[in-house]
Amino acid sequence: MIRLNSQDPGFAEAFEKIVGDRRESDAGVSKVVLSVLADVRARGDAALVDYTARFDGHALETEADWRIGAEECRAAFEALEPSLREALELAAQRIAAYHEAQKPENRDYTDAAGVRLGAIWRPVDAAGLYVPGGRAAYPSSLLMNAIPAKVAGVERLVVVTPTPRGAVNSLVLAAAHLAGVDEIWRVGGAQAVGALAYGTERIKPVDVIVGPGNAYVAEAKRQLYGVVGIDMVAGPSEILVVADGRNNPAWIAADLLSQAEHDPVAQSILITDDADFADAVIAAVEVELQALATQTTARQSWNDYGVVIVVDDLLGEAPALSNRLAAEHIEIAIDDPDALFAHIRHAGSAFLGRHTPEAIGDYVAGPNHVLPTGRRARFASGLSVLDFMKRTSFLQLDEAALAAIGPAAVALADAEGLPAHGRSVAIRLGQ
Amino acid sequence: MIRLNSQDPGFAEAFEKIVGDRRESDAGVSKVVLSVLADVRARGDAALVDYTARFDGHALETEADWRIGAEECRAAFEALEPSLREALELAAQRIAAYHEAQKPENRDYTDAAGVRLGAIWRPVDAAGLYVPGGRAAYPSSLLMNAIPAKVAGVERLVVVTPTPRGAVNSLVLAAAHLAGVDEIWRVGGAQAVGALAYGTERIKPVDVIVGPGNAYVAEAKRQLYGVVGIDMVAGPSEILVVADGRNNPAWIAADLLSQAEHDPVAQSILITDDADFADAVIAAVEVELQALATQTTARQSWNDYGVVIVVDDLLGEAPALSNRLAAEHIEIAIDDPDALFAHIRHAGSAFLGRHTPEAIGDYVAGPNHVLPTGRRARFASGLSVLDFMKRTSFLQLDEAALAAIGPAAVALADAEGLPAHGRSVAIRLGQ
Repeated sequence: MIRLNSQDPGFAEAFEKIVGDRRESDAGVSKVVLSVLADVRARGDAALVDYTARFDGHALETEADWRIGAEECRAAFEALEPSLREALELAAQRIAAYHEAQKPENRDYTDAAGVRLGAIWRPVDAAGLYVPGGRAAYPSSLLMNAIPAKVAGVERLVVVTPTPRGAVNSLVLAAAHLAGVDEIWRVGGAQAVGALAYGTERIKPVDVIVGPGNAYVAEAKRQLYGVVGIDMVAGPSEILVVADGRNNPAWIAADLLSQAEHDPVAQSILITDDADFADAVIAAVEVELQALATQTTARQSWNDYGVVIVVDDLLGEAPALSNRLAAEHIEIAIDDPDALFAHIRHAGSAFLGRHTPEAIGDYVAGPNHVLPTGRRARFASGLSVLDFMKRTSFLQLDEAALAAIGPAAVALADAEGLPAHGRSVAIRLGQ
Repeated sequence: MIRLNSQDPGFAEAFEKIVGDRRESDAGVSKVVLSVLADVRARGDAALVDYTARFDGHALETEADWRIGAEECRAAFEALEPSLREALELAAQRIAAYHEAQKPENRDYTDAAGVRLGAIWRPVDAAGLYVPGGRAAYPSSLLMNAIPAKVAGVERLVVVTPTPRGAVNSLVLAAAHLAGVDEIWRVGGAQAVGALAYGTERIKPVDVIVGPGNAYVAEAKRQLYGVVGIDMVAGPSEILVVADGRNNPAWIAADLLSQAEHDPVAQSILITDDADFADAVIAAVEVELQALATQTTARQSWNDYGVVIVVDDLLGEAPALSNRLAAEHIEIAIDDPDALFAHIRHAGSAFLGRHTPEAIGDYVAGPNHVLPTGRRARFASGLSVLDFMKRTSFLQLDEAALAAIGPAAVALADAEGLPAHGRSVAIRLGQ
């Protein structure tokens, strides 16, 4: 853990070093992924059989080896302990409600020149959702990725997920049932992403691929960007907590650790204007860590990447620092969070006030928990229904409208040295 | 040019071959770009000096070698021949009006559980716009890329453009003045894209990079996706014209050639239900070609990639074929274009009726002419203000709201094996 004070000489340099540390995975991954993708493209199902045997210890032979059926998902859902089922249902309902309101509106109007203009949004035909195997298989992630696709109107939603030595995660199957997933294939890694993008004999290709995964999965998505649409290039998770001294240090410590327990390279940062409060939070982190089942991961993240910054003036200094960090999550734990939030230009998602721990957004609040990491909130947004839709603009002119604006098009086409462009307009004007 | 009839045996196979031919550039580009980007990242301005001398024959020494100033752009604008200036102004005004209406709305509401939810859209801080040098330097492209950024509210809009042997394109400078571009740097190629993404001593980095370019520029953008936002992975341009026999063959021929003149690998496709009309269009293309200053390029494109498909039933067959092609541009030249357009799921932009040549959309109609190519309309949209903005979702709960939905979050966190997540909620509920 690094502790800084904004008044110290050398602060700017130390802070920029934190900003510049992107915690990226190593570049060796890129070559491996390139060859796996080429192999899946060339050999299809046969390549999937080979990689799945090698990496997951799972033989793809019978239909049941390849796919998990709808009945199995329904059974997993119905076998859920009632309070857990209700929690999943509450989450699904709130996520659906929030995303329903994101649906974009079509436009169709005629302007003063008599030109009809507009744009129509339509869903993609098919979307693929990567669901990690093992420890990182989260039913909440399945809901967060699948529900926006379904709200967008995607007709075919395909899950790929590794089942190491045949083991499936029944919570994930239950969530798949609830979200209305259409197909589940028992393949993972870069090979599964390749299968979704290129298609194989068994798996029909999709148009968009979303979902979290390890470095190989993330790199496969990055390499296939343009062949298909992808949600984003994701890196390790991070939280920035901006808190004054009037918070309970244990609450803030819990928030910092809720990020740290995800991943040894996750990052938790506290900015406060109260040095004693900073001390108290650091002490509380140690106390909280003792009781935590995930303490190994959380401690490593906190030790290696944790940051505590003490500033003089929270409202004056925190916005500029926060905008440089462009964090995935920002908590603003002060009495009037809107006053500070108004100056936050770059953040994936904001959690306002003292009773809004980031974790509430991970599960049941409604906004998406798939968010830009690694300073990408400078230019990227969280997952939304728009990631599963696309827009077709359209135009319609009659003779009068073409006569009104056509000559300008002809002039520009001529100036650009594109005579056939000009000709296609002029010929309709009888020129 | 390939001519097909949908009733012929072997049609499906021949058609799928056309769909599958992505007309991609060669893969050798990728390695070169990788090394150029690494070099610019490591050596900054010195690398730009070297590449610009080598590829553009332009020495970057004085300030005027590096940058084109605002005064030079203003002078270029003021020197425009009046009718051309008016055409540019009409285009700019109509593009601005169309994109102004795209601006997304913020959301801020409190739901029945007492949870405040919302999302705020903000522009990126800085955007970079690549403008090709030489023949492909189009003022219309500058307007189409720059105006949405300015409408979005981007404060710093940076153009990079190669000036081979020092030559600048005064039309482009005039358009830059009109669009309010803030900086213009005289660098091009993958090295210019790298400079925008990583920053150099002179050029501050940007958050989003847009704009057309050759295969090296396109590959550089693709490789930098995730470091910055990019508009899209672009390929050669294409048009699909769906026309019945009641069109003027010369008009349709002009439309097909307006695409073909862009690039020897551009593609023009006609689908019609009238074999005689198909013959007439093919003959008219030959006539039009004779008179065309761009006939070398247009003829090569038409010969190598042109396609004419005769179907039995336009309304019955054209939509499915069109959706497989997912063309950048689709013209629907029939009396009731909406009837057919209603079944078009995938297209970048549609041009409806007999008086709407695609070229009108390239210049002055208003919708963006930067559109998804190479079947990417299956999942991608044309350039819009959204490409220069991003969304921060937010949440605010009070104690009562947290008590209402918090327990479900705790249950899910426990089920997922993330105890610090649950703890950050439970501790606030006094548990």
